[in-house]
Amino acid sequence: MKIAIAGAGAMGSRFGVMLSRAGNQVILIDQWAEHVAAINAKGLTVDTETGSSQVHLPAYLPAQVTEKPELVILFTKSMGLPKMLAAIEPILTPETKIVCLLNGLGHVPTLEKYVHRENIFMGVTLWTAALIGPGHVKLVGDGRVEVQNIVPTEQAAAEEICRVFSAAGLKAEYSPNVIFSIWRKACVNGTLNTLCTLLDCNIAQLGALPQTAKLLRQIIAEFALVAKHDDQVALPVEPIARDIEALYDPKKAGEHYPSMHQDLIEHHRLTEIDYLNGYVAKKAAAAGLATPICQLLTELIHAKEALLVK
Amino acid sequence: MKIAIAGAGAMGSRFGVMLSRAGNQVILIDQWAEHVAAINAKGLTVDTETGSSQVHLPAYLPAQVTEKPELVILFTKSMGLPKMLAAIEPILTPETKIVCLLNGLGHVPTLEKYVHRENIFMGVTLWTAALIGPGHVKLVGDGRVEVQNIVPTEQAAAEEICRVFSAAGLKAEYSPNVIFSIWRKACVNGTLNTLCTLLDCNIAQLGALPQTAKLLRQIIAEFALVAKHDDQVALPVEPIARDIEALYDPKKAGEHYPSMHQDLIEHHRLTEIDYLNGYVAKKAAAAGLATPICQLLTELIHAKEALLVK
Repeated sequence: MKIAIAGAGAMGSRFGVMLSRAGNQVILIDQWAEHVAAINAKGLTVDTETGSSQVHLPAYLPAQVTEKPELVILFTKSMGLPKMLAAIEPILTPETKIVCLLNGLGHVPTLEKYVHRENIFMGVTLWTAALIGPGHVKLVGDGRVEVQNIVPTEQAAAEEICRVFSAAGLKAEYSPNVIFSIWRKACVNGTLNTLCTLLDCNIAQLGALPQTAKLLRQIIAEFALVAKHDDQVALPVEPIARDIEALYDPKKAGEHYPSMHQDLIEHHRLTEIDYLNGYVAKKAAAAGLATPICQLLTELIHAKEALLVK
Repeated sequence: MKIAIAGAGAMGSRFGVMLSRAGNQVILIDQWAEHVAAINAKGLTVDTETGSSQVHLPAYLPAQVTEKPELVILFTKSMGLPKMLAAIEPILTPETKIVCLLNGLGHVPTLEKYVHRENIFMGVTLWTAALIGPGHVKLVGDGRVEVQNIVPTEQAAAEEICRVFSAAGLKAEYSPNVIFSIWRKACVNGTLNTLCTLLDCNIAQLGALPQTAKLLRQIIAEFALVAKHDDQVALPVEPIARDIEALYDPKKAGEHYPSMHQDLIEHHRLTEIDYLNGYVAKKAAAAGLATPICQLLTELIHAKEALLVK
């Protein structure tokens, strides 16, 4: 299958590499010129548990690409989605299917501006990956993917995408309720990312704080309020909180600084807060619901951005 | 007058030095052994706009003092108040008057455990001072003090305390409503201290953030809710916010990191948050009022304390 990875950072590179090794024709699209140039010059350097190798995939800046893929996998940062879609619009045909695997909430209305609803597939992934530098990624650990059509008639197409992913070892499953999984993952990011960033600590340190258990449940409860109101999704607060708490284990994600911490505190880049707690606060305000915790956390992260991002 | 300064840090030292120079018999009481030893060994080193000098005042650890003062001026940190009162209880007579000039809210019930109500005088000061090191303070700038009795019959005694203070250049005024001034100052500390500490910035940087104007007013409004409910004090949100905003000026306090930032971020010491936003949140909860901003800010500061304080 002809596949374009739009947003070829760590996770996009993982999907690109695995899908290419399974025999698909993969191109990478990314806005980071240095990264694109490095991949084209010497291939993508991929570190795994068993060693390092070069994977040769064509890479393009968004405005440069002319090939028309059958499938586009979106892996940009949330705030980069509209710009990426605008840039790749010329290569989208009425048959091009789009799988959106971004973190965060509220992407469907953005997608609908560029893509017919029947071609939009929403997904969520538990794979991880790390970007070491331009043209260099580290792919370790295990994961899985869920994908679902947003138009009911397109289930077969979603299942076909899952087959392509699984044939590449990506362990994809058709999800009958991917919106639940998207909200659930947003709860993970809206707690661990946001609190570790504000408090400047890693996940294990956050988990050890006496304040965290209550804060976690307060935040998830606010997410649940909006999930229920806007998407008729019932998020069970306590089970989600317990699953998040399992990540404190230093053997799992504990020693890890969440991506928002890396973005803002280490690299002084803008965060995805408006697609997590900020999305919840905005949607709650529109619906007349109270989500003061998400509101304040969003303001504080934006304040930190104003202090740190040039 | 025989005066004991209980809590002889920067501000206590200022009052001690000025009152001593005006002819009062002043002793300093402090729990920091190194500071007490330095003062007794070579006097208190006082830097001012015009130079440096040594001021010789007897200094004691709280448990060591046996002299019975006529007036005790309390200048501990909020959380140090009960311990200081317990330690100096033996030197308090039924005639000893106590002026409480601590920052923060909620000190009267603590004072009442050790001192008869008619001997309690509450005050608030706008003087500043800095502790350079053990036995060394810097006293620059101008200020004033307000003092009031808490038992209505004791106004004359409060006015006498103001005369003693003013004779020493401390510009004291009898306040007909000191509780208003205490709440008002708590609003300053509950906004600037708390936000600069959480965001790790100075006052001018905080003032330049687009989020601050709204946050300031939200916090003050929560303080106003509890001030009204518990103390029948009407805090006007907008004028207080504007007065705080005047402090952003780099020519005033702008370049300054608030004391809570110094305590927690620089010196890894516990903060007075439970006597500011934490007091408001606790009292609001008891009264069935909602103060989610103060509640969350308190939790976040406590979380930071748990991360940073050994």
